Amino acid sequence: MGKILLTEVALRDGSHVVGHQFTKEQVRYVVEQASKAGVPYIEVTHGDGLGGSSLQYGLSKEYDIDLVKAAVEVAGDSIISVLLLPGIGTIEDLKEAYQAGARMVRVATHVTEADVSKQHIETAKSMGMETIGFLMMSHSAPPEVVLEQAKLMESYGADAVYVTDSAGAMLLGDVQARISLLKEHLSVDIGFHAHNNLSLAVANSLAAIEAGANRIDGSVCCLGAGAGNTQTEVLVGVLDRMGIDTNIDLYRMLDLADYVRANILPAPQDITSGSFIMGYAGVYSSFLRHAVIASEKFGVDSRDILIELGKRNVVGGQEDTIIETAQQMAEKKVSV
Amino acid sequence: MGKILLTEVALRDGSHVVGHQFTKEQVRYVVEQASKAGVPYIEVTHGDGLGGSSLQYGLSKEYDIDLVKAAVEVAGDSIISVLLLPGIGTIEDLKEAYQAGARMVRVATHVTEADVSKQHIETAKSMGMETIGFLMMSHSAPPEVVLEQAKLMESYGADAVYVTDSAGAMLLGDVQARISLLKEHLSVDIGFHAHNNLSLAVANSLAAIEAGANRIDGSVCCLGAGAGNTQTEVLVGVLDRMGIDTNIDLYRMLDLADYVRANILPAPQDITSGSFIMGYAGVYSSFLRHAVIASEKFGVDSRDILIELGKRNVVGGQEDTIIETAQQMAEKKVSV
Repeated sequence: MGKILLTEVALRDGSHVVGHQFTKEQVRYVVEQASKAGVPYIEVTHGDGLGGSSLQYGLSKEYDIDLVKAAVEVAGDSIISVLLLPGIGTIEDLKEAYQAGARMVRVATHVTEADVSKQHIETAKSMGMETIGFLMMSHSAPPEVVLEQAKLMESYGADAVYVTDSAGAMLLGDVQARISLLKEHLSVDIGFHAHNNLSLAVANSLAAIEAGANRIDGSVCCLGAGAGNTQTEVLVGVLDRMGIDTNIDLYRMLDLADYVRANILPAPQDITSGSFIMGYAGVYSSFLRHAVIASEKFGVDSRDILIELGKRNVVGGQEDTIIETAQQMAEKKVSV
Repeated sequence: MGKILLTEVALRDGSHVVGHQFTKEQVRYVVEQASKAGVPYIEVTHGDGLGGSSLQYGLSKEYDIDLVKAAVEVAGDSIISVLLLPGIGTIEDLKEAYQAGARMVRVATHVTEADVSKQHIETAKSMGMETIGFLMMSHSAPPEVVLEQAKLMESYGADAVYVTDSAGAMLLGDVQARISLLKEHLSVDIGFHAHNNLSLAVANSLAAIEAGANRIDGSVCCLGAGAGNTQTEVLVGVLDRMGIDTNIDLYRMLDLADYVRANILPAPQDITSGSFIMGYAGVYSSFLRHAVIASEKFGVDSRDILIELGKRNVVGGQEDTIIETAQQMAEKKVSV
């Protein structure tokens, strides 16, 4: 087994946890320490990617590009990555991020919409960036569909394709099935991004590695949306115990975790009933608030609403559907 | 696959988290709700078992037997269990627990010392209690030794034997190897008790079930020593998603988790650097405090001390060894 390439995402997925209020000082400290620990890739972007700072997705304290610049200054041998969701971020944003020193981009689409990533992947490649296709909500499509979409990203020139468990909904078998199919049929690197809503993020990452993934996302202190991601320092320690090489200094990562806990984490990232039910239902963590409001309005259990939304495969940007779904469920309840 | 029998341990392992300060009201509430949710076994005892309330292990707010009585009053169809570590608890304690209404006992010994459980298991059986052998620190002995010790407990009359990952140190393969060997060679039920220090408690519990265990411990809100145990409500949801029957009402468990979070949990049970390193080193969580003190005294990294203690297989009750080990390490450092 080759070396596992870790991407630290606390400064991107963790942006959701701190309401997009990362400061330059925090970014600089985390990047410098992660770099010294030997983390090869560090992602720095608004939680919803470049251009995410908005009334809809939450305003950042600092302009993304300024945070990228701050990160690059202290990144040493680590590569600074940005996230880009076509439709939220633009080709112009990407060019600015490149000029600020970002040398990796992850172009993220819903798992069935890889075709919208074509222009962005091609542009990133033409600038010489390491370019990753990022298939969000991969739990919601069968392995064959994930493969077909991954192949599209590979055909656009992506250097790697990620299976992204945005909702923290995957069981070990779900990961194994998707990663092993991609491994069999793609010639580029395979990656895996987990959320811990079902308490399986570390185990799912191990399953991904066993099935052939060599790129794994982690977030120090679990700092990420929902129940957080694969806890970096824990994964590094577990891989070390298993004799799998990450080239990352465990003690430095533990020291960084102590810093993040003391200075950034608003509250420990354990699994609440709310974050659990999102993974169980397979929906975005941003849905919870809407479901609770709809629950109060229509007298339907918010958990039932979320599970129904998961069954209907409702995706981000379709928040209006939540009200509609709750209303239909309330009417059905009355009519029974 | 038959039904999985869950034992809720928040009111026993979680006793460590609340400094053994559970009140009768808390015990009554948790037992009543867990019983209504359908949890078959609920353990109520000081964190270190019957007789644990002492200056050495921490004084309980309420006498164990009174908590057991309070639990039994509202337990409905659930069976109230007690933990007994021979040496800390006595046969007299066991008889009192039986008189208070406890109908299951888990007789716990270090993984290599099953022979000290003989009298306690035989007495419990003769009183008609459901009697479980509980092999603590099972990670520290090879599978063949765990089997040999489990066979002893079976020969004394135990109705089931647990592989107990007291330090949260096991990887998936460690669980698989031990449980499958026991399953092959024992005719009694096999159980598994996890801690989440390596973020693998839920995944390890699934691995145990796959390998043949049918009794699993969970703690609501992860309330247990170190990084806590297998989070009950999460495990119930994951097993439900996998089509494995526990007969437990998920929503009721989530409601109970909300209560525990609001009324009992002193702080969310996430994985700190401290709890991680205990799992990584394979030592009891009570060692951390001693290692930090020894670290300050001798100028050796507390993590190095804990890892060395793990290598030396230091067990509970040998806390003096921590100082000795740190001193030896400091001397070695100077002499190099």
